[in-house]
Formats: sequence, C-alpha cells, structure tokens
Amino acid sequence: MTDTVLSSARREVVIGFDRPFVMIGERINPTGRKLLAAEMKAGDFSRVEADALAQVEAGAQMLDVNAGIPLADEPALLARAVQLVQSITDVPLSIDSSIIEALEAGLAVYHGKPLVNSVTGESEVMERVLPLVARHGAAVVAISNDETGISEDPDVRFAVAKRIVERAADHGIPAADVVVDPLVMPIGAMGTAGRQAFSLIRRLREELKVNTTCGASNVSFGLPNRHAITGGFLSMAIGAGMTSAIMNPLHAEPKTGVMAANVLMGTDRDCVAWIRANRDPDAAVGEGARGRREGRRRRA
Amino acid sequence: MTDTVLSSARREVVIGFDRPFVMIGERINPTGRKLLAAEMKAGDFSRVEADALAQVEAGAQMLDVNAGIPLADEPALLARAVQLVQSITDVPLSIDSSIIEALEAGLAVYHGKPLVNSVTGESEVMERVLPLVARHGAAVVAISNDETGISEDPDVRFAVAKRIVERAADHGIPAADVVVDPLVMPIGAMGTAGRQAFSLIRRLREELKVNTTCGASNVSFGLPNRHAITGGFLSMAIGAGMTSAIMNPLHAEPKTGVMAANVLMGTDRDCVAWIRANRDPDAAVGEGARGRREGRRRRA
Repeated sequence: MTDTVLSSARREVVIGFDRPFVMIGERINPTGRKLLAAEMKAGDFSRVEADALAQVEAGAQMLDVNAGIPLADEPALLARAVQLVQSITDVPLSIDSSIIEALEAGLAVYHGKPLVNSVTGESEVMERVLPLVARHGAAVVAISNDETGISEDPDVRFAVAKRIVERAADHGIPAADVVVDPLVMPIGAMGTAGRQAFSLIRRLREELKVNTTCGASNVSFGLPNRHAITGGFLSMAIGAGMTSAIMNPLHAEPKTGVMAANVLMGTDRDCVAWIRANRDPDAAVGEGARGRREGRRRRA
Repeated sequence: MTDTVLSSARREVVIGFDRPFVMIGERINPTGRKLLAAEMKAGDFSRVEADALAQVEAGAQMLDVNAGIPLADEPALLARAVQLVQSITDVPLSIDSSIIEALEAGLAVYHGKPLVNSVTGESEVMERVLPLVARHGAAVVAISNDETGISEDPDVRFAVAKRIVERAADHGIPAADVVVDPLVMPIGAMGTAGRQAFSLIRRLREELKVNTTCGASNVSFGLPNRHAITGGFLSMAIGAGMTSAIMNPLHAEPKTGVMAANVLMGTDRDCVAWIRANRDPDAAVGEGARGRREGRRRRA
C-alpha cells in the first residue's frame, strides 16, 4: 500500500495501490501543437484555459502543465500557466519541464503539493532536481533512463528506477513521493514494448513498492485507430499494477479503458462511476435483461 | 510453452502461450435465445448456419456449438449442428453440453480434433467425460468447480483445476489438452471477480502451465455499456496470460480488446492483423503524423 498524496489549495488527490487510477491530463503542452505554442508565446492563454476546463470536465483528476516553447521565456510562461490553471480549476498539477529554472518558477507560484515532471537517473539531473523537489515538499516523476540512454533491458531500467528512489531518499524524499515512469516505447516500432512495460510495472509495484505513471499515448504512435491501442494498453497496464498516467481524457477509448479497468480491479466500488458515466435507461435495461439470462446459465 | 492443437478436417488451430489469442464464437447456443431454440427443435438450422458464417467472418478461429434445449433430443440436435457447421466452415469446434450422450453424439460425427466443453472437478463428471475425451483424442475445457460448488477462494479453484489435470493424465490426456476455465463471475455482483480471475489465470499459466479459456461476456452481466467492460476484461486477462475465450466476435469492443491485446503482447507480429483491420488511409496518415511528433518528443 503506497499512497502519493498530491494537492492544490483546495483539493487532495491520492495516487495509490488499490485506489481508482489517476488520469493526468496531457493536453497543456505546446510540443507538437504549433498554434498553442504561438499563442502562449504571444501571451494568449485562452487555449490553456479551455484545455484545462475540458480535461477536468472529462474526468482528469490532475493536469500536466508544460510550456516548452523554443526561444521563449519558459520559466515565465510556465509560472503563468500554473497560476492560470490553479485559478480556474482545483485539481493538483504536474509541473512539466526539462529546464530547472522553469520547474523553479512553477514551484514558486504553486499552491499545494504538486508533482514535478521529471527527474531521470542521470547524476547531474538528479543533483539539480531532487533538492528542488525536497525543498518544496513535492512529489516527483522518475523516468527510468540514465546517461547511457533508454535501455531495452527491463532489468537495467528497474535498476535505474531503484537508484533514483535511493538518491531521492538521500535528499529526504520518501519512496511514496517518487512516481516511476517505466518509459513505454511505441509498440509499432518495438514488438516487446508492451510485455516489457507490464513486467516492469509489476516489479516496480511488488519489489520497489512505488507508484507508476507513463505518457500513455506514446505506445500507439504511428498505428491506425491508435486510441483503441492506447485504451487496451491502459487496461492492461492497470491490470499489471500501474496507478496513474499522463493521457488525454478527451479521447473516448483511453478513458473507457481506464474506467473499465477500475471496475475490473474493484476500485470503482459497486461500479458507481461506470454506471453514472453510462446511464442510459433503455440500453441498461435491455442489456441487463439479456445479461441476467446469460449470468444464470453460466452460474448454473 | 504449452500448445493445445485443435483441428477440423482441413484446418489446425493452436491455443498457446505467446501465440495470438483464440476467439471461440459463442453464438450457436440456444440458452436464452428462444427463437433459435424453437427453430432448432423444429429442425430449422438456418440461424445456426448464419451464426456460424457471421462469426467466422468476424474473426472467430473456433466455434462453440451447443444444443441445450429443454425437452428436446439434445444428442441428435447437437450431432446435426456439428455436422452442419463442419460442412460450411473449416474452423475447429468446441462441442458444448452438460449431457454425456450429447457429447458422445457430437464426437461421433466430428472430423478432426475438437474441444469438449466441459468437464468439472466433480468426481462423477470426471469419470464420465474424461474417458470419452481420451477415446476420441480430443482436448477438454476444465471448469474449476467441484461438488462443493464454485469457491470464492482462488486457492481452492486452483486446487480443483490441478486435480482435473492430474485425473486427465490418469486417463492418458496430457496437460496440453486440458484448457482450464477459471470461472469468471459477474463483476457487478462481486467486486473481487476481476482480480481473482487475473491472479488465477497467472497461476494456471505459470505453475500448472496450462492454457485457459472462459465465457468472457459473463463478467459484464447486468452492467450498462457491458461490451466495453467485456473488452477491457479480455485485454486485461490476456495481459495476465489467458490464451482463449468463448465470446462474441460480432461485438466491436470485445473483438477490439482482443486485437489490441495481441498487438501489445507482441503476438500480432508487426501489427499486421491490426493494420489490416483498421486500414483507412486518411485516418492512418493523420494519426501517424500526429503520433510521430508525440513519439519524437517522448523519446527525446
């Protein structure tokens, strides 16, 4: 039982074993979104606002906020985006940057306990990011690569994750505040990517006893009908023990994959969230009646 | 690596570890289908024929054939259904009855090596069914309940499965020809049903080294939008190691759940089946272009 407690000024969200999976909205990220990048650089944050509200409405319990725009003042943009999103929603945030000054600027204006996205297993990165995380009492996403790159050997990736957790402890950050990203590769490019991710997630949970997250949409990169692959991946990863993901809750299949997995893992108690999301009296009655007969037959 | 080889006169299908999941079509079953039951009883097998063709067209690699109609001559009906389906398709069959005479009649007319559905852990049932399976060189579905009913304790269900495998061996039936059904309960009635099934499937594969199957649709009994739950369950069960299911391939979500899981487990080599089933040049190009950018970002 490991709980990672995150908060905004008004709300607490817990990423944890045996709890409903936490969806972290991925949309506030100008990478690959030219229009959003241009707008943010020009000081227009209306799309950031719309994306924040839409993702929370769709069920995101947290939001990732990234302002990585080439040749822009990323620290200032990230701080402004964090403040804006915190002023219009009450979900905890994941403050996302590879630039330490941007993380510092975002943390300086944040109210509550955020997730810092991310630290890698590279010594230099750990020495810069972990003290910052510790000073702000934040939690951190630990990406399982190091100076040698992303290993294809799951044992190496596990060892990197273990090293980050140990180094975090040296800085006074408990393992419960380290959320490990096993790094999911595109399945279309690497047929073993799924199995590797599932076995690594299981080990991270059972042996290292940490929570896990990942950028879920990457797994389906380049494939047709990709959201269905992402949805299947999320269900399977949750079955293997994954406890959160940075994903797009506006896409039907990934969201359904998460909600169905919550039902099947027993964390959506009495299927309350599922039934609320799918209530359609006619369909429910028709399906129920048919199901009842089948149920009787199989249990007989 | 356990392979269960089934065959018709013209085609072989292998249920096995590290192979694409085998979908066994569930539709040819009059239980809960009044019209089909009345037609079969009256000697009209046109719906059996249509259901057989539609399921194979939808991707079923095997078909379950059941003729359980109250007050009807089940052995004669089952034999006729088996002959008819074998005359119009070349997929191996699962011959499904709880009546020994019906299984005998179906086996007597069958060409190839079928799956006999099913034997339980009840001593009397094992003593009647296993010799028949052995005599015909068939494989058999082993349902993990016994005289005491269906235990809620997964350890008990594992022990029952183990006992059936041992008794089958006494009759000369190898473990590779015993496909265990862990008995999946409706998740709406029992919140632990999913976790139980996944852990049992994993143990059956890792410790008993047998293939597994189940009546997949039962898990979603009574819930709205139930096919999405069944689809998520199938993906997760495949992630846990399940190798086949008796299911409805005509429903989009369960079929997609299976196909996505085959991609993610690496058994759909180079995603060939997925790409073939989802080819839509415009969508594929658009998605691919978007995915490429995301992929580059995450791997950077």
